[in-house]
Amino acid sequence: MRGLNDLSDLSREEVDALIELAIRLEHHPEPEALAGKVLALFFLSPSLRTSTSFQAAMTRLGGGSFIVSPESAIHGLEFAPDVKMDGDKAEHIREAIPVLASYGDALGIRAFAPKRSLEDDIDDREFQSMSALSTVPVINMESAIRHPCQSLADWKTLDELDVPSSGGKFVLSWANHPRALPLAVPASTVHMAAMRGMDVTVLRPEGFALPDRVMARARRAADLSGGSVAETSDARDALNGAHVVYAKAWSSAKHYGNDDAERELKKDLAHWCVTESWFEGATPECRFMHCLPVRRGVVVTPNVLEGPRSLVIQQARNRMWAQMAILHSILATSS
Amino acid sequence: MRGLNDLSDLSREEVDALIELAIRLEHHPEPEALAGKVLALFFLSPSLRTSTSFQAAMTRLGGGSFIVSPESAIHGLEFAPDVKMDGDKAEHIREAIPVLASYGDALGIRAFAPKRSLEDDIDDREFQSMSALSTVPVINMESAIRHPCQSLADWKTLDELDVPSSGGKFVLSWANHPRALPLAVPASTVHMAAMRGMDVTVLRPEGFALPDRVMARARRAADLSGGSVAETSDARDALNGAHVVYAKAWSSAKHYGNDDAERELKKDLAHWCVTESWFEGATPECRFMHCLPVRRGVVVTPNVLEGPRSLVIQQARNRMWAQMAILHSILATSS
Amino acid sequence: MRGLNDLSDLSREEVDALIELAIRLEHHPEPEALAGKVLALFFLSPSLRTSTSFQAAMTRLGGGSFIVSPESAIHGLEFAPDVKMDGDKAEHIREAIPVLASYGDALGIRAFAPKRSLEDDIDDREFQSMSALSTVPVINMESAIRHPCQSLADWKTLDELDVPSSGGKFVLSWANHPRALPLAVPASTVHMAAMRGMDVTVLRPEGFALPDRVMARARRAADLSGGSVAETSDARDALNGAHVVYAKAWSSAKHYGNDDAERELKKDLAHWCVTESWFEGATPECRFMHCLPVRRGVVVTPNVLEGPRSLVIQQARNRMWAQMAILHSILATSS
Repeated sequence: MRGLNDLSDLSREEVDALIELAIRLEHHPEPEALAGKVLALFFLSPSLRTSTSFQAAMTRLGGGSFIVSPESAIHGLEFAPDVKMDGDKAEHIREAIPVLASYGDALGIRAFAPKRSLEDDIDDREFQSMSALSTVPVINMESAIRHPCQSLADWKTLDELDVPSSGGKFVLSWANHPRALPLAVPASTVHMAAMRGMDVTVLRPEGFALPDRVMARARRAADLSGGSVAETSDARDALNGAHVVYAKAWSSAKHYGNDDAERELKKDLAHWCVTESWFEGATPECRFMHCLPVRRGVVVTPNVLEGPRSLVIQQARNRMWAQMAILHSILATSS
Repeated sequence: MRGLNDLSDLSREEVDALIELAIRLEHHPEPEALAGKVLALFFLSPSLRTSTSFQAAMTRLGGGSFIVSPESAIHGLEFAPDVKMDGDKAEHIREAIPVLASYGDALGIRAFAPKRSLEDDIDDREFQSMSALSTVPVINMESAIRHPCQSLADWKTLDELDVPSSGGKFVLSWANHPRALPLAVPASTVHMAAMRGMDVTVLRPEGFALPDRVMARARRAADLSGGSVAETSDARDALNGAHVVYAKAWSSAKHYGNDDAERELKKDLAHWCVTESWFEGATPECRFMHCLPVRRGVVVTPNVLEGPRSLVIQQARNRMWAQMAILHSILATSS
Repeated sequence: MRGLNDLSDLSREEVDALIELAIRLEHHPEPEALAGKVLALFFLSPSLRTSTSFQAAMTRLGGGSFIVSPESAIHGLEFAPDVKMDGDKAEHIREAIPVLASYGDALGIRAFAPKRSLEDDIDDREFQSMSALSTVPVINMESAIRHPCQSLADWKTLDELDVPSSGGKFVLSWANHPRALPLAVPASTVHMAAMRGMDVTVLRPEGFALPDRVMARARRAADLSGGSVAETSDARDALNGAHVVYAKAWSSAKHYGNDDAERELKKDLAHWCVTESWFEGATPECRFMHCLPVRRGVVVTPNVLEGPRSLVIQQARNRMWAQMAILHSILATSS
């Protein structure tokens, strides 16, 4: 395996093999597998789970990692392609990436959406241009439109709990939030569930439909897997018979990058907060999922979040095992 | 051993065994003992010695660690139990702790005293509620009222120098300081010396008596060990025949959390700075101890701090060996 | 080997042996060589390459490292020798260094020039006084006047590309920059090239001559190696027949520490930016070198920086291999 940019780059068989490897590593440690191997971790956006789970993953496999993050004492990064660097910024991304890559056997990059243009973000322009500068395999640790490590961890979580794939109903629900969040997680999640063969419903209020290109891509994955993808703003209909409710706040594609317009749109949407009553028409064992961090009392109530339906800690924990499988596939085979 | 919350949770035999293990690891490295094991380090308060000595400890045992600290680029932590999270804080401690714990084989937590209530801090409320959220063994890296790693390192230091336990006179002296510091180190230190069987005198000016519950607990430890615990504001009397002077600034329990009242109380206490003259009535080889960081010219004069009596660097170095023994006891046996 | 303070502390044979070892480690990994060994990394100035390449180096040799950096949540460091510490600063460098050293098997220190006095900085006063506090071998990670790790990496880079030593023409050229940068890299670089036996020309505008003591030291190295050291402000003459152009901005020694005077001096020096036309009289395969970070469009044009002459990424990558050789020499032999 040469890096991981998107779940859609993997076949169903490759996903299954990664999850199988993740389970194997969880139960049969390999503390020498990546001895002497180095993972370079480059964060341009904040992180709790991703930075710590990748560090833990490398340690568990006998290797190591280093982190460069927004608060590091580096020299100020310039991203503009043609610029006379006579201001505060002392280092250009076109040197920083190849240098960091040259110290690692693989390079993880996180860069949230710039949100200057919806089309550019769906094309994942910024991330792809950074990724192209690396001389070693790149792992996408969340870009403008992708979060494959989260999706692989979520897939493993669903498998472990025997949530049905064929015939399973997966509801990805928009949730309220004080900020306009990126599209990476919802875009990855709808794709993951569709690729797993589930019947996916995107539940969202008017104005928060996922971009057409994202939905079209998920539908193609569903066509291959035997699943389906629908969308609605009718909560009762969406939640009826659900096996999973995956909540997530995301930006309005319609008002992308326009925070004021989005705030206006959200004025009356405070009831888009998952409560126990959401599960009334669902299957009895219906699960609650979220990628974290999550706003209590805004996205979901504490009793659902901490109740028996909730998989959020297990999802987070599976980040580590899923990433160990990715790292093992990239680095142990290249040795 | 399942975690370490307080020295008082250990029997005298357990302390001796930990110190013996620390000495063994110092002289006979075990660079494979914790291969593939991960220590999660969670700092809610600043650290120099603790963060670096724990990282070094894990490396020396063949494992690894990761750090989340106040300056990390995380999402803003919420601690309030029932709150609608629609402000700046994006992640609740009730998710953060279980997630970090899920990546580690053990979890170290540091959280200085909130100082909202003396009783709550003596009960160590905040730390215990965080500790309860962990699914893996927790190591107390300094809480409102405890610093067991420091005390274990200090105990090892005293043993190495053949400072007498039975019949040894240990003076814990209050010292001046521009800030109102926590009670964790004095409370742990008086307990440690009492548990070691020494004759402990707490020397402090009026208004700076340690809380009754702290003193009572230390007296119970002295009853078991054959030591004693006294307190006085008479320096000459306290220092007479001393084997150890352990200096430390701490807050007034009487004016706990009230910085103005404490400042007023300290107006005329600038002479509570350890000088060479303090040792005139002490035993000739009387030692000077401090947990660091220390304010030169305020808590102690440079000539004492850098002179032959001073154990401060050895104490700091023993943090590493003591913590290696703790980690080895928790993690090597659980493998 | 006991630490590394300056390239001039090494004989030509020792440099050759280190480079040979660096090449061996690059091609024949030794992931167990430093198992259980700890490198303490203490940064008082910002770093991208140095901090990440040292961390990667230790991992590749099976050991580990920890970092204390300017943005760490430590307690505020005091450097003044005799001071009553009743202000914001809670820890003195005279405790911090011995403590950090006590956790490591070696200690790397970075501290840029204080720029209070040119003579003090050429004597490397601050660094040497910090280095003297360590109980373990110290590695100079860039001080006021030295950057031996960079020079060793550059030397390896020149060797790999068969840049001639005897008879090779090495031009160290001053370049424009918005800030007044330290002398460490130019002083180290002129010494490195002279010690390698090259014919070195320092090309710089009036007012930017390197200090006499720096030039005299380089000339002594050239006398030993059979090289030569000259200086000029005539670009055409300097660049004629060059095998290497090494660009670097540095402060005016004449106006050392006086930023206003230096800014005035640089008003008309914007043309000291390396362009392709600089190479017209050079050898056809003439190389471009820079230690990074580099200001595009100020120090060098993007087409030279990213063109076939440029060695900047290779130089940066060789930092890691050179440092692995240093660490191996210090720590593997001391085990």
